[in-house]
Amino acid sequence: MAKPSIDLMILGALKERPMSAYEMDRLFEARAVRRWVRVSAPSIYRNLLRLREEGLVDGREEKGEAAPPRTVYAITETGEARFGELADELAGLDARVDFDFTPVIANLYVMGEDEGRELLGKIKERYLEGAERLERVLPKVARLEAKANMELRLGTYRLVAGWVERFERDFYAAPEGVRGWVLGADGSPSTPDEAPFSTFDWTALGGGA
Amino acid sequence: MAKPSIDLMILGALKERPMSAYEMDRLFEARAVRRWVRVSAPSIYRNLLRLREEGLVDGREEKGEAAPPRTVYAITETGEARFGELADELAGLDARVDFDFTPVIANLYVMGEDEGRELLGKIKERYLEGAERLERVLPKVARLEAKANMELRLGTYRLVAGWVERFERDFYAAPEGVRGWVLGADGSPSTPDEAPFSTFDWTALGGGA
Repeated sequence: MAKPSIDLMILGALKERPMSAYEMDRLFEARAVRRWVRVSAPSIYRNLLRLREEGLVDGREEKGEAAPPRTVYAITETGEARFGELADELAGLDARVDFDFTPVIANLYVMGEDEGRELLGKIKERYLEGAERLERVLPKVARLEAKANMELRLGTYRLVAGWVERFERDFYAAPEGVRGWVLGADGSPSTPDEAPFSTFDWTALGGGA
Repeated sequence: MAKPSIDLMILGALKERPMSAYEMDRLFEARAVRRWVRVSAPSIYRNLLRLREEGLVDGREEKGEAAPPRTVYAITETGEARFGELADELAGLDARVDFDFTPVIANLYVMGEDEGRELLGKIKERYLEGAERLERVLPKVARLEAKANMELRLGTYRLVAGWVERFERDFYAAPEGVRGWVLGADGSPSTPDEAPFSTFDWTALGGGA
């Protein structure tokens, strides 16, 4: 299955210069690209073959004298155009962010307060730890894109930690009626002020599945 | 395949009260749970069957007088224990955040400045739009968890928009050598100060694949 992010990474590498699948894998490894994008070695091999079939890359078999033969890939004109389209597509996607812990937040209302507070404490701790790790590494990073990417993550982790702290305070201070998802299965709101929430067109928000 | 987030959502709903797969689907729909977690109707049906086989939920066939028969599910003691484990597991995951646009950032160095600036502008615009949509809806939301979840997303979108603006300025002001991922395929750093970046143990950061 074609994934825009993987195609963009592969075509981008070939925009730099022609190379074999193995070289590309080593390049992504050396550049720590896998901190950015999920692009495994098997997916490089598999997708290069597909991109070749689609005419987005050319493959040239090279016979080394001592080394085994290898295929060196180069981007085609169609591939260059596709690269531009993919970049445009990814840059134009609606804003979106997901956090692994959201199902925990969504289920706090069926837990006891002690259990809930412990879980919230754990989430906050993990994000503070993540932020500390990034803070330690940042001074050692020279590449601007890598540094900037880490700074964005650092900022987000800090934001989450602060958010969890405020949320915990507000959630356990709130009256029971406002706390949980207690809207009925028939769609009727359990409190009058919930109506706008349930009838609102959520698809317009573009931030979820 | 069992997904912790879906199992937690299903078991959590049954902790509230026994219900059928259809009722659960309606409940998630009414509560806009799908803004939080990817939990489709087919996955509710499929995973309830699996959870029943695993003994985490009980199913009781009910024959209605006029209505067709339906299965009403209830959480078992084992299911209650599993709910706690899953919540703990999700709350304990390492900090992590992914953005769709990162492959674009990673490939800016193989693009012209005009193209790059246009893409960055587009990303910023999408996140500002997302923030504006959330700002408009927030006053209408009564449920604390939903409101808090949206506030976290709003904060993140604003962070991204500000970050893109700073990144664009820094990236195109930076000397060529610091700008791109120009580490060689053999793993040798292209500039001396890149060495710590390439040899650092990235797996310790816990923020990527």
